[in-house]
Amino acid sequence: MTRQAPASGTSVTSKVLALLEAFTPEAADLSLSELARRSGVSLATAHRRAAELVEWGALERDAAGRYRIGLRLWEVASLAPRGLGLRDAAMPFLEDLYEVTHENVQLAVREGLEVVFVERIAGRDAVPVWTRVGGRFALHATGVGLVLLAHAPAAVQEEVLGAPLHSYTPKTVCDPARLRRTLADVRKHGYSVSDGQVTVDALSVGAPVFTPDGTVAAVSLVVRADSAQPGALAPLVMAAARGICRSLAGGPSRVFPAGRTRL
Amino acid sequence: MTRQAPASGTSVTSKVLALLEAFTPEAADLSLSELARRSGVSLATAHRRAAELVEWGALERDAAGRYRIGLRLWEVASLAPRGLGLRDAAMPFLEDLYEVTHENVQLAVREGLEVVFVERIAGRDAVPVWTRVGGRFALHATGVGLVLLAHAPAAVQEEVLGAPLHSYTPKTVCDPARLRRTLADVRKHGYSVSDGQVTVDALSVGAPVFTPDGTVAAVSLVVRADSAQPGALAPLVMAAARGICRSLAGGPSRVFPAGRTRL
Repeated sequence: MTRQAPASGTSVTSKVLALLEAFTPEAADLSLSELARRSGVSLATAHRRAAELVEWGALERDAAGRYRIGLRLWEVASLAPRGLGLRDAAMPFLEDLYEVTHENVQLAVREGLEVVFVERIAGRDAVPVWTRVGGRFALHATGVGLVLLAHAPAAVQEEVLGAPLHSYTPKTVCDPARLRRTLADVRKHGYSVSDGQVTVDALSVGAPVFTPDGTVAAVSLVVRADSAQPGALAPLVMAAARGICRSLAGGPSRVFPAGRTRL
Repeated sequence: MTRQAPASGTSVTSKVLALLEAFTPEAADLSLSELARRSGVSLATAHRRAAELVEWGALERDAAGRYRIGLRLWEVASLAPRGLGLRDAAMPFLEDLYEVTHENVQLAVREGLEVVFVERIAGRDAVPVWTRVGGRFALHATGVGLVLLAHAPAAVQEEVLGAPLHSYTPKTVCDPARLRRTLADVRKHGYSVSDGQVTVDALSVGAPVFTPDGTVAAVSLVVRADSAQPGALAPLVMAAARGICRSLAGGPSRVFPAGRTRL
């Protein structure tokens, strides 16, 4: 999973942001020297800026003095319309999907060439999946990813289809021509099926959440592949997706303002 | 609901943070001039810094050119151990609580003198509540708030008890001496009951999530006050809270590192 490179340049803004992006799921708490090294600033600069970030609450320190992302940053970030704003509008429909299936229910958006998972509800007995709320995944393999890719601008599709496609299982579609036909099917039928393409034992059915500005999110159910009936799941997922569309259209505009400017 | 004042001083870090904290639930999208005014910087400075924040993804612009919090900031912030980290550890137990009750299930932490809601699951027919994930509330009224206050450091309790206590309903406990007795009961019995103290039709039962470092969170059920049986709900909520404790103790240390340094 690639991340965008840090904003180039030496502006102080970019250095502050470099400090924040030093944190990853694999490195969620950092010593000062790790923080300085990962963000590419001097120890003195990291120390001074980290102290300011701690004072504000963007970072916190644990008992051992290690830095981690602070609750205050999470509070501010919860205002992201494509994060918790979307999640709030979608939650009743996700809960309904969960109620009637007790499987994995997922909500995701596209950010650049990847999927970002915004919400996940899972039953205790549901098939294990790799996703983490706030985590990323490739577009070409998951149910939500296939939906988001099928409805992405042509330039995004070409960039994905033009690069090597990672094979997660023997069933992952890695041939560009075949993937192109799969995406056409997703658009034609209104839903995607990812059968054993991420993990061999899981099947995912995804559907698009669209607004007048295009497809802004995707919702999916992930179930055990051996007992899955995609034809029965598809209407369920599509109905939930349409409910979320309606909720977004009817809600206050600030919950999900029209338009997107970033890929 | 007060928020801390912006980090004082004129450092660029504080100006960057002032730009982020210009966004609130009531003002989740802002024009450039609103952004400059609310963050206390010049229009030119706001323009330059906002462009850098948009480039990185901390802010996004909608079709009308208004700024809002970006998905990338939400992704980084999802690494906050007291945000999604805690939520991930707690989610299976919250889902179990929801499964067996179909009521409102809430997870919250204390930040300074307020409650911050980290997760909420609600049935369609559950009693309406005011809480929003990422939102704040006073400590002295809600089920989770009473738990977090009862187990807070003495200095925090004195500060809350020494200030005027807002009355949300005629049943809100606003007398410091009575609130002190309530908090003693919460510690003694291991759970809190907020009966009509936030909205007259809702009753909440809360229980603490503790680690060797103290009480780090609280979990609650919110049900209709008229049919509520707090004595039956308490063991359910307490058992869920204990499950979360166990999950936190057994999980990888980076999910919820020991200790807290901020009040």
